[in-house]
Amino acid sequence: RARMAFVARALSRGASRRLASSSTSTTAPTPSSSRRASSVTEAATYATRGPAHEVLEMTTVPLPPMGPGDVRVRMLAAPVNPSDVNIIEGKYPLPRAVPGVGGNEGVGEVVAAGAACVGARVGDRVVPNRSYVDGTWRRDIVSACENFDVIDRDVPVHAAATLTVNPCTALRLLEDYDAREGETVVINAATSGVGRALLQIARTRGIRTIAMCRPREDARETEEVFESLRADGADVVLPDVEGKILRLDARTRELASRARVAYNAVGGYSAQTMLRLLQPNAGSRMVTYGGMSKQPLLVPTGAFIFKDITLSGFWLTRWLEHDATHNSSRGRRAMLDEICALIRSGALVVDAARFRD
Amino acid sequence: RARMAFVARALSRGASRRLASSSTSTTAPTPSSSRRASSVTEAATYATRGPAHEVLEMTTVPLPPMGPGDVRVRMLAAPVNPSDVNIIEGKYPLPRAVPGVGGNEGVGEVVAAGAACVGARVGDRVVPNRSYVDGTWRRDIVSACENFDVIDRDVPVHAAATLTVNPCTALRLLEDYDAREGETVVINAATSGVGRALLQIARTRGIRTIAMCRPREDARETEEVFESLRADGADVVLPDVEGKILRLDARTRELASRARVAYNAVGGYSAQTMLRLLQPNAGSRMVTYGGMSKQPLLVPTGAFIFKDITLSGFWLTRWLEHDATHNSSRGRRAMLDEICALIRSGALVVDAARFRD
Repeated sequence: RARMAFVARALSRGASRRLASSSTSTTAPTPSSSRRASSVTEAATYATRGPAHEVLEMTTVPLPPMGPGDVRVRMLAAPVNPSDVNIIEGKYPLPRAVPGVGGNEGVGEVVAAGAACVGARVGDRVVPNRSYVDGTWRRDIVSACENFDVIDRDVPVHAAATLTVNPCTALRLLEDYDAREGETVVINAATSGVGRALLQIARTRGIRTIAMCRPREDARETEEVFESLRADGADVVLPDVEGKILRLDARTRELASRARVAYNAVGGYSAQTMLRLLQPNAGSRMVTYGGMSKQPLLVPTGAFIFKDITLSGFWLTRWLEHDATHNSSRGRRAMLDEICALIRSGALVVDAARFRD
Repeated sequence: RARMAFVARALSRGASRRLASSSTSTTAPTPSSSRRASSVTEAATYATRGPAHEVLEMTTVPLPPMGPGDVRVRMLAAPVNPSDVNIIEGKYPLPRAVPGVGGNEGVGEVVAAGAACVGARVGDRVVPNRSYVDGTWRRDIVSACENFDVIDRDVPVHAAATLTVNPCTALRLLEDYDAREGETVVINAATSGVGRALLQIARTRGIRTIAMCRPREDARETEEVFESLRADGADVVLPDVEGKILRLDARTRELASRARVAYNAVGGYSAQTMLRLLQPNAGSRMVTYGGMSKQPLLVPTGAFIFKDITLSGFWLTRWLEHDATHNSSRGRRAMLDEICALIRSGALVVDAARFRD
């Protein structure tokens, strides 16, 4: 089993061949043999900033000696999030040292724990939290146990590996902006990891969803994608196309009449359509958490003055690092527990599970 | 004395001639003779929507019979606010009946008061509040006394006539968005009525100001305008020009380092410059209350996600009508009292005073 399969699959062909040949040429020690672990590990490293498929390579990196408050974690899976690639390119505003190890997410198993470790024990499955910054695309991690959260073993490995960014963002978007049962939220980029998690979590809360999604080139493929969004919980799927607003059917109009919150990950014309769907003078808000179109938002003055729409942004990193109320291990812990419970119940199927190998 | 001078001056030439000939052909009754007032009055009316200078004319309109809760107000002055013209054109989202009387601001004197009137007495100087919707461009008003606020007689007539929109907006902008002593606020359209009031009120509160203003065609004129803004309290005046951001001098950079609130009345490139001046990750906010450029705001995604800037709108009409906390006569009253006190102290010179005839 290729433990770094996510990395290998998501990187471009040349790099993935390099990574695959490196990772398969090494036999991973089993957890039981790792008490006398080596002081080095394999990792997907970059020595300079640039396109991930050009600068990444599998190398051996040193591990710090284990202190009494440290755990040694054997990684089980680590995904590639677009932001991981942007960080390697130097285009994402998160400080990461160069040379460095790629990756910010993943799941691992504790194979050794110092005497002073609180929370994590040998055999626990753990995910790194935002305090851990040394890269997850590696076989082993040695770091302070506070940098990890323990996750139930009955969460599938691939879901656990992608738990800490997309589903957490989806949960926060629904919780922090006052979306209520019976109301409608509007989302775009509905097929994204956050989008699909948001649709599924909204359904569990009785929150209706208008899901905007770009049509595919092939009509049949478009219908399949739209149908998959409805299966994830979208009450209505709107084709997200530039130009004049679509004629809305009665059901969509009725849903839009209770739309006070929109979650924007696209920008450009897509955000303009969302602004038109939001109810005026209802304290409506559009929260931007992504900008996939790379186009800025174009907002007519009247949306602010006469429609009383507020525009703001959400960044999970900020929530974790700066929100005084929530930035306790308890707040983060409660969020992870809720998402794990949704996954165990089957209400939330994390996107990555579709790519299980 | 032309009592409707503001109206006459601000309208285009043809209409102003019409208005002037109408208003000067009528001798206004003095307050003492008005107890047996006529049941009609002169007014600047429009029978259809359209450009103000085409559709406005001086006509005689009926007055309702005075009830016990009514006052009869003899108007002393009524200004032309751009929004008055937009309302006549039908381009402003305030419901006003057609045919109707123009104008939403002004100051008058109570010449008769019903037995059940509370607050207003004969001889009081009053300004209409937002509950009064029948137009101020007229000689007399008969309406419920609750539709008026009493203003001290030592506030100059021309200042009193323009009290209820621009200075109130300026005060609310400073009060409601947490601008604090020692911090900097950024404004554009600095020579506008709101802009000049905001500069002067900010100065009384120890709030620093970066005032953005379009350069005039003539360099000497530009310097005179900029100097007048500095005289009104602007700590720095920035030429508001399209294109790359200006090189900021040390003083402006230092002021901008404490800028968390911007007040936008222009949109377009001006709003973009403001976004760049606001401090990132400081909970900064840009409040849009006007759109003089008629250009939408162009907001890069990163301003929301990575800089945590919130964009919202302010509309005094909404504050007066819908804000449950503030929409008491007490909240409005306190606001008027504060502005009158600033005018009496000389700290606030209301723009209209410059056009006194």
